[in-house]
Amino acid sequence: MDELRIIEVKKSVYANNDKEAGENRALLKQQDTFMMNLMSSPGSGKTTMLVSTLTRLKEHVDIGIIEADIDSDVDAKTIQKTDVDVIQIHNGGMCHLDAAMVRQGLDDIKSQALDFVVVENIGNLICPASYDLGQNLNCMILSVPEGSDKPLKYPKMFTAVDVLIISKTDALSIFDFDFEALEESVRKLNPAIKIFPISAKTGDGMDAWCDYLLKKIQERSTQ
Amino acid sequence: MDELRIIEVKKSVYANNDKEAGENRALLKQQDTFMMNLMSSPGSGKTTMLVSTLTRLKEHVDIGIIEADIDSDVDAKTIQKTDVDVIQIHNGGMCHLDAAMVRQGLDDIKSQALDFVVVENIGNLICPASYDLGQNLNCMILSVPEGSDKPLKYPKMFTAVDVLIISKTDALSIFDFDFEALEESVRKLNPAIKIFPISAKTGDGMDAWCDYLLKKIQERSTQ
Repeated sequence: MDELRIIEVKKSVYANNDKEAGENRALLKQQDTFMMNLMSSPGSGKTTMLVSTLTRLKEHVDIGIIEADIDSDVDAKTIQKTDVDVIQIHNGGMCHLDAAMVRQGLDDIKSQALDFVVVENIGNLICPASYDLGQNLNCMILSVPEGSDKPLKYPKMFTAVDVLIISKTDALSIFDFDFEALEESVRKLNPAIKIFPISAKTGDGMDAWCDYLLKKIQERSTQ
Repeated sequence: MDELRIIEVKKSVYANNDKEAGENRALLKQQDTFMMNLMSSPGSGKTTMLVSTLTRLKEHVDIGIIEADIDSDVDAKTIQKTDVDVIQIHNGGMCHLDAAMVRQGLDDIKSQALDFVVVENIGNLICPASYDLGQNLNCMILSVPEGSDKPLKYPKMFTAVDVLIISKTDALSIFDFDFEALEESVRKLNPAIKIFPISAKTGDGMDAWCDYLLKKIQERSTQ
C-alpha cells in the first residue's frame, strides 16, 4: 500500500531529524542562544507579528531571523526594514523545515553572537508540527479570521507548541470567534499551553507577549 | 542527503498517484460525473463557501461531497445540514489527499448515481497542489485576510488550479488586500485562471461563481 510506504519513509526521516535537532539543541546551549520556531497557516500574520516583536525586543537582545519560504523573499525583505539580521532559506517547495536546514541557517547567520534566533517556518498547520528543530520555544499563531475550531482539525500542531498567539484580534467585530470554545479545546490537547491574544495593528496584547518572551530569552542560561 | 531521499520517494508516490488519478478520471468519464477538487489554507472558508454553493446547485444536479480531515468531522456535519450526501475521509494526519483515497470516497458515496462530486481537500496550500486526483476542475480559495501576496509564496498551488475564489470580501474594509497586485501575480503564473471574488456571508459574487460551475457540470459530457 502506498500509504504505508510513505509512513515508513517519514519514520526514517524523523529519526535522522531528531538526531540533527538534538545537535542543534546542544549547539544553542553551548552558544547560549535562545531559538524560537514560529509556525502558522499561510496569511495568519507571522511576519507582521514578528516585526512588531522585534521592534520591541531589539534594544534588549541581539537577534537574528531565519526566514523560510518556498521561493520568494517578500517576508525577509519586510524583516530587513527592522535592521535585525535576517537570512532567507528557500526550501524548494517542501512543506516544512527540518533540523538540517535550520542548522545551515544558524551557521550562516552566525548564531554564536546572538541571544535570540527566530525561525519563521513555512506557512502550514500540518507538516512543520512533526519536525523538531532543536528550538527552545515552539510558538504558533492562529488568526481570528481562521476560526476557533482549528484545534479540532489540526490537533498535532496545537499539541506540539508551548505558546499559542491569537492574532488579528482587531478583526473580532466581523468574525465569529469563540474564545471560550477555543481555549477549552486547546487545553484538552495541551494543558500547559500559554495563550496570548494580540493585534499587531493596534498593539493590543503585544506588551504581555513581549514581556513573556524577553523573560524566557533572559532566563535561557538557567533553563 | 535526507532531502534527496525524500524527493526520490515522493517521485515514486507521484508516479503511482498519477496512474490512480488517471483511473479516477476514466471512471468519472464513464459514469458521467463531474468532480471538483477544492483546496485552500486552513480557515479560508472552504466549508462555508461550499454550503452556500450546494444550497444553490442542489435543485439542478445530484451532488455528493467527500470531506477530508485529519481526524475531526466538524465540516462533514456542517455539510450534512444541506441534505447533500457527504462522506468523511480521515487520512490519519497526512497533509494531502491522494488519488487512491479519493477513489475509496467515490466508491463509498456511490458516485455512479451523481452528476457532481466535490472533494474538500486538507487545509494546506502546499502539498495538495502536487497530487492529481483525477478531477475535472481544480479550485482554490484565498481569503481576503490571508493577504494578496500569497501567489508569490505558494506559486505551485496558484499554477495548478483552474479557478481561484477570493473569499470573505465582506472583510475588505479592515484588511489591506490589493486586487490588482494579486491578479497581476496570479496571471503571470497562470494566464487562463478564472477568478471569482465572493462573500458567502453577504452572497456577493455567489451567482457568478455558481452560474459558471453549473455550466461546467452541465457541459461535462461534451468536454
